[in-house]
Amino acid sequence: MKKVRIALMGLGNVGKGVWMILNSNKKEIMKRSGYEVEVAKILVRDKNKPRDVEVPGEIITTNFNDILEDDSIKIVVEVMGGLEPAREYMLKCMDRKKHIVTANKMLLATGGDELFEKADSMGVMFNYEASVAGGIPIINGIDESLTANKIEELYGIVNGTTNYILTKMQLDGLNFDIALKQAQDKGYAEADPTSDIEGFDAQYKLAILSSLAFGTKINVNNVYREGITKIKSVDMKYAKKFNLVIKLLAIAKESDGELELKVHPTMIPKEHPLANVYDSFNAIFIKGNAVGDLMFYGRGAGSLPTGSAVVSDIIAILRSNVDIENDNPVVKNNLWHRKIKNIEESQSKFYIRATVLDQPGVLAEITTVLGRHNVSLRSVIQRGSKNSECEVMIVLVTHKTMEADINAAIKEITNLKCVDKIENIIRIEDFK
Amino acid sequence: MKKVRIALMGLGNVGKGVWMILNSNKKEIMKRSGYEVEVAKILVRDKNKPRDVEVPGEIITTNFNDILEDDSIKIVVEVMGGLEPAREYMLKCMDRKKHIVTANKMLLATGGDELFEKADSMGVMFNYEASVAGGIPIINGIDESLTANKIEELYGIVNGTTNYILTKMQLDGLNFDIALKQAQDKGYAEADPTSDIEGFDAQYKLAILSSLAFGTKINVNNVYREGITKIKSVDMKYAKKFNLVIKLLAIAKESDGELELKVHPTMIPKEHPLANVYDSFNAIFIKGNAVGDLMFYGRGAGSLPTGSAVVSDIIAILRSNVDIENDNPVVKNNLWHRKIKNIEESQSKFYIRATVLDQPGVLAEITTVLGRHNVSLRSVIQRGSKNSECEVMIVLVTHKTMEADINAAIKEITNLKCVDKIENIIRIEDFK
Ligand SMILES: NC(=O)c1ccc[n+]([C@@H]2O[C@H](COP(=O)([O-])OP(=O)(O)OC[C@H]3O[C@@H](n4cnc5c(N)ncnc54)[C@H](OP(=O)(O)O)[C@@H]3O)[C@@H](O)[C@H]2O)c1
Ligand SMILES: NC(=O)c1ccc[n+]([C@@H]2O[C@H](COP(=O)([O-])OP(=O)(O)OC[C@H]3O[C@@H](n4cnc5c(N)ncnc54)[C@H](OP(=O)(O)O)[C@@H]3O)[C@@H](O)[C@H]2O)c1
Repeated sequence: MKKVRIALMGLGNVGKGVWMILNSNKKEIMKRSGYEVEVAKILVRDKNKPRDVEVPGEIITTNFNDILEDDSIKIVVEVMGGLEPAREYMLKCMDRKKHIVTANKMLLATGGDELFEKADSMGVMFNYEASVAGGIPIINGIDESLTANKIEELYGIVNGTTNYILTKMQLDGLNFDIALKQAQDKGYAEADPTSDIEGFDAQYKLAILSSLAFGTKINVNNVYREGITKIKSVDMKYAKKFNLVIKLLAIAKESDGELELKVHPTMIPKEHPLANVYDSFNAIFIKGNAVGDLMFYGRGAGSLPTGSAVVSDIIAILRSNVDIENDNPVVKNNLWHRKIKNIEESQSKFYIRATVLDQPGVLAEITTVLGRHNVSLRSVIQRGSKNSECEVMIVLVTHKTMEADINAAIKEITNLKCVDKIENIIRIEDFK
Repeated sequence: MKKVRIALMGLGNVGKGVWMILNSNKKEIMKRSGYEVEVAKILVRDKNKPRDVEVPGEIITTNFNDILEDDSIKIVVEVMGGLEPAREYMLKCMDRKKHIVTANKMLLATGGDELFEKADSMGVMFNYEASVAGGIPIINGIDESLTANKIEELYGIVNGTTNYILTKMQLDGLNFDIALKQAQDKGYAEADPTSDIEGFDAQYKLAILSSLAFGTKINVNNVYREGITKIKSVDMKYAKKFNLVIKLLAIAKESDGELELKVHPTMIPKEHPLANVYDSFNAIFIKGNAVGDLMFYGRGAGSLPTGSAVVSDIIAILRSNVDIENDNPVVKNNLWHRKIKNIEESQSKFYIRATVLDQPGVLAEITTVLGRHNVSLRSVIQRGSKNSECEVMIVLVTHKTMEADINAAIKEITNLKCVDKIENIIRIEDFK
């Protein structure tokens, strides 16, 4: 049996999962890759930290050069996270002809180009399945299995924490704060949950997914983003009334070479497969022009699921015809040019919840403004509960509308005397 | 741009889909594969058959030798179906160093070994993504993306016709015959629907999937099979009462190197992701020891979805480091030995529906027999509707039980004087 020496940079959640899988599934990995995989070095910050996996002390190091300068190490797995020094370390390793596996979504979404270019120019493999949706093989799915397709639409539930929170709000009637607290107690949400609940994590992942799906380079700044902090229990109730469910969706659509890229809370029909993705599960739903509707569902995070993706990436390198011992160019870098639409050009149906004065003629005033901005209504619920003596809640659902139009209309409506406050605006996606 | 010449054998449902995709997505395919794909020849039975795709007359042929003997044809796509001459043609093409893409589940499940061995010995690629679950990339998923895992369990809804029928029975309350008729009218079921409704088609697919998932060779005869023809509306109703849903599942489980392989109607919890797979959609649910729960969902048949899988297989050949022009060995053939359990050793919970005499003591007699065979009951519904003056329906749900025990018990129960007939027995899977 051939042997290959690899190194891990990081022995946190994901690193430990990788270590455990390499050990417990050693036989399977040998059969499938043709290699015995030996972890030669593991880079950490603190050598003395107690760790709940048994790793021989002598392979743990805090010195990156132990990995970089060891030419017998052919594959380096970056699971340390953060921008620097992860970026610098990977670039240096590639310069030394080491193949890379990474789980680092933040780095890929913000400075990925440089890494891909380095990999291309050095002829090394650069795999990143674990960076999006943990154990779900969506990167490989798009990159290897859907190659016959023009991908037209992609909808992802790619953040487990927010999906857990929304599930609790939907099924158990919890309000946002309590659901968030539960997610933190369960270990799904971090002490500072901003990256999850404000949609940054999903934004990174959509940048990576859509770059691949549409064969172009998407920077995270091109992705419109809105989090879930403004979703109220009452919105959940209205959604239910309309037979809809609220999910944080990462959405990418292509038409005529133009892309629409956005992350926001979205109301979707209860019967849609994405509506049945509960708890911390992730799913990615794709429409391809040949394959039609396709969905991948599974665990988007966690030590072992994410480790599964990392280890499969290692095996892919070993099974590729890339010669691990010697140089061998790997090139695939055929990009399209794509125009990215501004969110203002994007179209949706909208759910609008407002507090208005309890007096006649309010609806007429509002619809007049909407009409002037080409926004037509699908339904109105006015009998909403009273907030106070003289105010009522009103809920409007529009037909398909340009964001620019709705924004202009909302601006005017906010200034109407009869309107106290626009409480919430949530986009509706009916997949048609 | 490099050019590659390929041939199709067959221009039916799937062949037409392949032709259309190669044309409509030509640019994407060029970018992704690095090749311009030219269809040099298409083999059919009848040259003069009118076809609803526009194919230049001069590339259509009825002479297989036009393909075999043309050494400029590097890839042959077999979408003619049937055992012979498909088998002979593929073997001959591989002998001439042509790579193969096939959608032929029947042939793979019954005589696949010979084809894989030939591919190995000739160093050509042999891809068969389209043979299972049409457009869903489950073959690639298992073979490339889940390589880090021991796959412990696999549950598939892999036949669209039966899933359509069961959906109609479940949601619209149709009985089997009418649902089948609708499936035929819609073009989902063939004039002779035996292969679908008796579970043969699912049996082929499970043989292929489990061979791959467990790294061994499964012949279709090792897969236990039961179709859906015995499912009655009343069973659907009882399932609903228990919060269960009836699906035709292809099930494979591994433990301690032993495999359980079976296709049968199965009651599953309504909240399980597989329970929400409706109409003619397919899905495969997998439990891996690293990745956890994973599901792939999509179109299991049809011209374009199946064509999507075929064309992706073609692109995979072009993108592999296999040198299309010259010889290049491709070897991956590391098999495990696995013992396959007899269905008698398999364990399930069971739903049993029987007609019994409307007299006291019947339940006691039945449970005594069950108890003697180690079958314990989880619930009983006796208040079933009367069939006639002196008979009632009784429904039993057991705890987990060996098939051998349930069979022995049922045999005795059938002979009880107070029992008129065992109307139906359906296995229950709760994924625990
Ligand atoms: N957690 C998940 O479920 C998940 C899922 C998908 C992707 N990811 C991605 O995977 C990566 C790792 O995530 P994680 O959750 O495993 O992180 P983590 O638990 O914080 O672990 C980070 C590890 O990297 C080491 N490390 C960090 N900075 C270092 C430095 N400057 N020098 C040396 N070692 C350093 C740490 O060493 P010490 O142990 O000594 O502190 C630790 O072992 C991130 O990019 C994350 O986005 C995570
Ligand atoms: N249909 C699906 O959705 C689907 C999905 C997954 C897999 N598959 C598999 O794909 C394969 C093809 O299915 P299909 O539905 O496309 O079948 P089909 O519509 O019956 O087409 C078969 C084609 O093969 C040609 N052919 C058959 N026998 C031949 C022979 N002896 N010599 C030359 N040509 C011959 C026929 O020629 P003529 O046109 O001249 O009759 C026809 O063009 C089968 O293995 C099937 O199991 C099908």
